[in-house]
Amino acid sequence: MAVALPFVDMAVEHPALRWDGARLRVIDQTLLPAAEVWLDISGADDATSAIRRLAVRGAPLIGMAAAYGAALEITRGGDWQPAVAALRRARPTAVNLAWAVDRVVAADDPIAEAEAIEAAEHAASLAIGRHGADLFDALGVTTLLTHCNAGALATGGEGSALAIVLELHRRHGDAVHVLACETRPLLQGARLTTWELARAGVPHALCVDGAAAGLLARGAAGGVVVGADRIAANGDVANKVGTYAHALAARAAGLPFVVAAPTSTLDATLASGAEIVIEERAAEEVAPPLPGTPVRNPAFDVTPAALVHAIVTEEGIRR
Amino acid sequence: MAVALPFVDMAVEHPALRWDGARLRVIDQTLLPAAEVWLDISGADDATSAIRRLAVRGAPLIGMAAAYGAALEITRGGDWQPAVAALRRARPTAVNLAWAVDRVVAADDPIAEAEAIEAAEHAASLAIGRHGADLFDALGVTTLLTHCNAGALATGGEGSALAIVLELHRRHGDAVHVLACETRPLLQGARLTTWELARAGVPHALCVDGAAAGLLARGAAGGVVVGADRIAANGDVANKVGTYAHALAARAAGLPFVVAAPTSTLDATLASGAEIVIEERAAEEVAPPLPGTPVRNPAFDVTPAALVHAIVTEEGIRR
Repeated sequence: MAVALPFVDMAVEHPALRWDGARLRVIDQTLLPAAEVWLDISGADDATSAIRRLAVRGAPLIGMAAAYGAALEITRGGDWQPAVAALRRARPTAVNLAWAVDRVVAADDPIAEAEAIEAAEHAASLAIGRHGADLFDALGVTTLLTHCNAGALATGGEGSALAIVLELHRRHGDAVHVLACETRPLLQGARLTTWELARAGVPHALCVDGAAAGLLARGAAGGVVVGADRIAANGDVANKVGTYAHALAARAAGLPFVVAAPTSTLDATLASGAEIVIEERAAEEVAPPLPGTPVRNPAFDVTPAALVHAIVTEEGIRR
Repeated sequence: MAVALPFVDMAVEHPALRWDGARLRVIDQTLLPAAEVWLDISGADDATSAIRRLAVRGAPLIGMAAAYGAALEITRGGDWQPAVAALRRARPTAVNLAWAVDRVVAADDPIAEAEAIEAAEHAASLAIGRHGADLFDALGVTTLLTHCNAGALATGGEGSALAIVLELHRRHGDAVHVLACETRPLLQGARLTTWELARAGVPHALCVDGAAAGLLARGAAGGVVVGADRIAANGDVANKVGTYAHALAARAAGLPFVVAAPTSTLDATLASGAEIVIEERAAEEVAPPLPGTPVRNPAFDVTPAALVHAIVTEEGIRR
């Protein structure tokens, strides 16, 4: 069962971004899972547009798409600077975006640099998958609950949390089962994670976020695995809102709560999670039925390090 | 500010059920909050229909509506038994339904008996509100998070958890603030609780269920108050799915988690929450975007007694 796919096939099969050596296509994530529409990205302007309207989402995936968009723009020649500068500013918070564009701009061979960025993301994802699967194998856990989408749609390769799930599935087949929380308000779990799991043939079920604690208490999963948006120096983890409640429920049930993230997510400048600014997003995302109802809509929450069994990065396991 | 409304006004103002001495009307809760449509209930058949299609919901409110429906049917004369028997079976799980119908059938004056049932529900709600407000006053708490709808739309009077909120609001005015969780999958919090709070003028905000834990950790409320569907002899509490996670979050934040319920909710035949059967409802309620995605949809969860600061009933406070 332990068939590790060769690297090139991983790239070809990436569900959200495909580079054939000359042309870039990205899937429009705003239309998933109802429709799988691929967008041609011929230069920086296309990449800017796709990133701005969230057709491309997830910091590593944004970095990859921006790298190719900038490389195509530069390679085409002409006055590429204004379009690439706009691409670099397409979204304010994705650290990978400016970093990837800067790398491509500074490179002697922009296309090769973009390919190197994609290759590094793929390699990190594969390594996270293997380290995480080793961890859960040591724990004897094949059934997992996850939150939001920490899969290929957000990253290179197979994702972070979902890379672990897919590696476990290659090792253990249909003994693996995933409970995907729908992840209100934007339903990334219901829309994107179930789409990825169905596509990969991994047995799974969807539940509302509020059902997770009771289901974990009743043994519906043997552990929790999630991604991370930012990890402080003390190990506190900021991730999609709803994650902290799952960590509390895992602790109460005596189950391991595992975070999977590339080392680029570690932010040594933050001493603890208390320093992480929680973005409060628009009320429209929650869409109250009564017009004018005030809404609290934090996009993230912070899980204290004490609740985290382990952090899995491409370099190995941190506790 | 402490203006306690006289009992008669409470009845007139009930937002879901109005009896004028001869005619019963109920609000169609399936249409809230988009529209406030009142249904005439002229006898048992109307009551059966309204209860079956969830226009009337909440065990105490179902009991009240069924009592009046049966009383009207009996008073009208003729062969009332078949329609009243069908009403008694309109929903299988609401204990109050059969109990209320049986009381009316056995009474010398059916209408007076239905009025007595409604009066008892109102009185219980008022007493719960006062006991609960006394409890939170002693704790110095005026900001509360709640889940689902434990208000007048589910009960007589002002509800259970929301009766406490409304009593606090009469005592402390706009120092009171409620965070209402939207309560997936059926959104009773977003649809019904915010409607009740807006109607009563209580400051409030709506949040997704997954945001509760992080918001409690950051001080967005000083306590949690919820209703209950069933309470075991050891104090374990079954309530709408999502409640248990809020109890864990309250404990982690050092905040009181309070359950409000009439004594009719206490089930001495169950030694602990482990004996409570958790209803698994239809996948369609969760509505996965991908057809065929398996769904786990437990309607309730169990909060262990150890997490419950107090249970407020019409008789007082239980710890």
